[in-house]
Amino acid sequence: MTYSIGVDFGTGSGRVMIVDTNSGEIAAMSVIDYRSGTIEENLNGNPVPSSFSLQDATDYIDVLKRGVPAALKEANINPDEIVGLGIDFTASTVVFADKNLTPLNEKEENKNNPHAYTKLWKHHGAEEEAKYIFNTAVKDKDRWLGYYGFNVSSEWLIPKLLEVKNHAPDMLEQTAYVMEAGDWVISNLIDENVRSNCGRGFKTFWNEEEGFYYDFYEKLDPELPAIVREKLEGRLVKIGEQAGVLTDEFSKMLGLPEKLPVAPAIIDAHSGLLGIGSKKKNQLTLVMGTSTCHIMLHEKHVKIPGISGSVKDSIIPGLYAYEAGQSAVGDLFGYAVKQAPKEYTDEAEERGISIYELLEEKASKKEVGESGLLALDWHNGNRSVLSDSNLSGLLIGLTLHTKAEDIYRAYMEATAFGTKIIMASYEDWGMEVDDVFASGGLPQKSDLLMQIYADVLNRPITVSASDYASGVGAAILGAVAGDAHKDMDTTISKMKQPFLKTVEPIPENVEKYQELFKIYNKLHDEFGFKHLFHVMKDLKEIQEKQETV
Amino acid sequence: MTYSIGVDFGTGSGRVMIVDTNSGEIAAMSVIDYRSGTIEENLNGNPVPSSFSLQDATDYIDVLKRGVPAALKEANINPDEIVGLGIDFTASTVVFADKNLTPLNEKEENKNNPHAYTKLWKHHGAEEEAKYIFNTAVKDKDRWLGYYGFNVSSEWLIPKLLEVKNHAPDMLEQTAYVMEAGDWVISNLIDENVRSNCGRGFKTFWNEEEGFYYDFYEKLDPELPAIVREKLEGRLVKIGEQAGVLTDEFSKMLGLPEKLPVAPAIIDAHSGLLGIGSKKKNQLTLVMGTSTCHIMLHEKHVKIPGISGSVKDSIIPGLYAYEAGQSAVGDLFGYAVKQAPKEYTDEAEERGISIYELLEEKASKKEVGESGLLALDWHNGNRSVLSDSNLSGLLIGLTLHTKAEDIYRAYMEATAFGTKIIMASYEDWGMEVDDVFASGGLPQKSDLLMQIYADVLNRPITVSASDYASGVGAAILGAVAGDAHKDMDTTISKMKQPFLKTVEPIPENVEKYQELFKIYNKLHDEFGFKHLFHVMKDLKEIQEKQETV
Repeated sequence: MTYSIGVDFGTGSGRVMIVDTNSGEIAAMSVIDYRSGTIEENLNGNPVPSSFSLQDATDYIDVLKRGVPAALKEANINPDEIVGLGIDFTASTVVFADKNLTPLNEKEENKNNPHAYTKLWKHHGAEEEAKYIFNTAVKDKDRWLGYYGFNVSSEWLIPKLLEVKNHAPDMLEQTAYVMEAGDWVISNLIDENVRSNCGRGFKTFWNEEEGFYYDFYEKLDPELPAIVREKLEGRLVKIGEQAGVLTDEFSKMLGLPEKLPVAPAIIDAHSGLLGIGSKKKNQLTLVMGTSTCHIMLHEKHVKIPGISGSVKDSIIPGLYAYEAGQSAVGDLFGYAVKQAPKEYTDEAEERGISIYELLEEKASKKEVGESGLLALDWHNGNRSVLSDSNLSGLLIGLTLHTKAEDIYRAYMEATAFGTKIIMASYEDWGMEVDDVFASGGLPQKSDLLMQIYADVLNRPITVSASDYASGVGAAILGAVAGDAHKDMDTTISKMKQPFLKTVEPIPENVEKYQELFKIYNKLHDEFGFKHLFHVMKDLKEIQEKQETV
Repeated sequence: MTYSIGVDFGTGSGRVMIVDTNSGEIAAMSVIDYRSGTIEENLNGNPVPSSFSLQDATDYIDVLKRGVPAALKEANINPDEIVGLGIDFTASTVVFADKNLTPLNEKEENKNNPHAYTKLWKHHGAEEEAKYIFNTAVKDKDRWLGYYGFNVSSEWLIPKLLEVKNHAPDMLEQTAYVMEAGDWVISNLIDENVRSNCGRGFKTFWNEEEGFYYDFYEKLDPELPAIVREKLEGRLVKIGEQAGVLTDEFSKMLGLPEKLPVAPAIIDAHSGLLGIGSKKKNQLTLVMGTSTCHIMLHEKHVKIPGISGSVKDSIIPGLYAYEAGQSAVGDLFGYAVKQAPKEYTDEAEERGISIYELLEEKASKKEVGESGLLALDWHNGNRSVLSDSNLSGLLIGLTLHTKAEDIYRAYMEATAFGTKIIMASYEDWGMEVDDVFASGGLPQKSDLLMQIYADVLNRPITVSASDYASGVGAAILGAVAGDAHKDMDTTISKMKQPFLKTVEPIPENVEKYQELFKIYNKLHDEFGFKHLFHVMKDLKEIQEKQETV
């Protein structure tokens, strides 16, 4: 028997899995919450802007330190049976580290400076920078813009880098490496500055043939090319390769074999594709967790508006991977749960069920359209296809009878409508969707959610049985790095997770949702780019004026 | 010492007050909840449409039976010192009664028929009928339409009457009297079918010079004139007159003097003007409770779009009273309180304060615009100036950080913006607003609310010290009926309630609210009558289709 370790670094916790390289079975798992969690609203008692979302990168190493030994113990296997290790990470989560790879926030004098901390994927402090980058690229019709959906998101690495340059130049001064958090973890493990093609391709302006677009960086800021050269370069490692081997220090600390092969980091959502075994075109995979990624593979390079990125070889060698996204999905449902009135929390407690379960039960009893409520799911901005994080959430159709489950269901439906718009974009550009796969943490948990998606998309949805597809995908890359099988394709086939079920659309609901979608689509366009384009932005602007006071 | 009894019939309870006719001091008060409350969503276990809002009229008599003796006992006065009795009532709350004035729902065979019950002011089951009446009037440019704001509300009496004719003709067959609930109570007390000019003028199509508009009723339905003649006529009594005297049976039952003079019923909001002593033009009085009425007096008859009614002599003899309204105010705040998450209810309980107080405290700490949130306060439709109960509530600017107090404050602000639009309509038509008075149940309870209104309206707001102005107004009419003083003007001057304080606008906030109001106004117009006019209606239509399934 051989095993591979996959570590899935999510928004709030890291999940260490030990996966059988022949069956894909998860032999053991250990989930470690980040000690400092996510830093929002205040940092050590000082307020931070509402757009900020920070973490302490040392928490990621802590996940390994505590999680790997715990999982090994639980699996009760001989550590020598481990053949490799891979990780997946949220992106673009950006670490600012010194030449010893120590995050800047570790230094006492930096600990109250928000710009010393890791900027989580959903940190939106770089709006201005993203806008500036976009406008600069548009002006010169920069050749690569189409490959990033004709948009620049403040969630990407370069805007976050410029944010620090603009607002905390002293922090950038202290920084030796600006890294995707996934690259930072791998670089620590193998003690070498390496960068994965997956993060680099999707989150900076780079492709394999041309490297970094230095001519464009020059246009953005004459100092930027030097900064990128100094702080962003590093040995490129591609998905499917080995990044290096574990240092002796980490081998001892984690209780793993000496010189264990380590894979390059992969973006979490992309890893999910490997985990469920989606490896060809015409398959739309939804990786649904805090947010949703909508990934497709295709042999051609097409410029699709509003699709956040497209990078060759970043999941499956030889194919372009396309990524679109919705920035609030599980987060939005969690928010609704947190807002549940007391009578709901009381009922859930009394019946010994979770508030999620209670809201789902109540929402399931409603007919499509019965509540008269509709939402725009832009509570964390809109990634695809509008790519505008200055948009905000909307509820329409509220009455004095609107109940918590109505809002909960409206949020579910809104995320499904948002996915429908993304799917339509892929199809409009020639990437037909034959199969829809649902993976990630959410799909197994909610029958209602999957039925709504099937009805709204009017497609059967094949649901992954595992909500650990991303972690298994990471383990697959670990197994590939450790040569567990003859090639990557075989490794995927052996280790991919089984499917739980296929949810078929209900024709009657499909029809009703077509009516509701027309309204969603209308509001989407009006507030997204047409007549009421400025409304949400004006509100944000007024809000930001207050924050600076 | 002499006293007058004023009974204020609200949405959920009746309030019996014994008021000193020389000082206006409230000697005693007894609040009686309606035994059956408000019947919504289900009637005896059977579902009723979500637009329905019903009551059992016998609960109103119960208020008198239990409340008058209780108040007399508390006041500890000689009943012979009572000189008169007056009542005010929500409107248009419509009772369907047989020839003995017995409400139809009292009959065993009718008790599961929603159309046998009293239709509360906020019952919205007559949408179709209101639309039909409006369209018919518009077609022929009916002369009177302008006096009703160029609109017909489903909350008025004639649409509700047609609703029963259309949906439950057998109920109408059994009906001898279709009455404003206020008239129904007075008719019971004096055992004669009388009708107040206040309710008749505002809630049917009638004026004193012409009487009922029979020519128009004929156009609506050839059977309608006969129905109106048979079931709506009755001796007209005007505000400031005596309606009659108490029957011996009621004198005994209530423990009141024989042949006690009784005043005609007045609409609750209008009564509030008397209670606070607003009796001249250029004063805007906000009567703020479950809903808000915006009343002005003026010597001329002007046709103001979106103002729900204008009737001569209905509050102060010689002046036209104008009424506009917002249909969800206190109700909306109550709804927000009911939705408060558990951590809020826990904190309130722990600190021994109400959830209202907690939300107000937290909302007070926010700067204007800080939450980035804006609402349209149309959760119960829009009465003025759009007069469209198919509109619904909206929240925009939602994020994953939006808190309950943000929503609470956004609702407060939205009702203030709605009032600003109404005030602007009065002013556009030549009725300048010099003073703004705030009375009703809400203003004394919330400093924040009054400050928001002062800032949004950019006017000092004079707050009534009593939240019982409507009941005192009713007692004033009782005193007038009982000739306590030489004339009505003197009676008002002696009995009017004192003011608590005047809230001045804060210039800095006034300016910020001007920005936010621009956005409110934009959304108001877009969803109210412009580009997105149909969106809320489409949602309602889809909802109603589900209800009929």
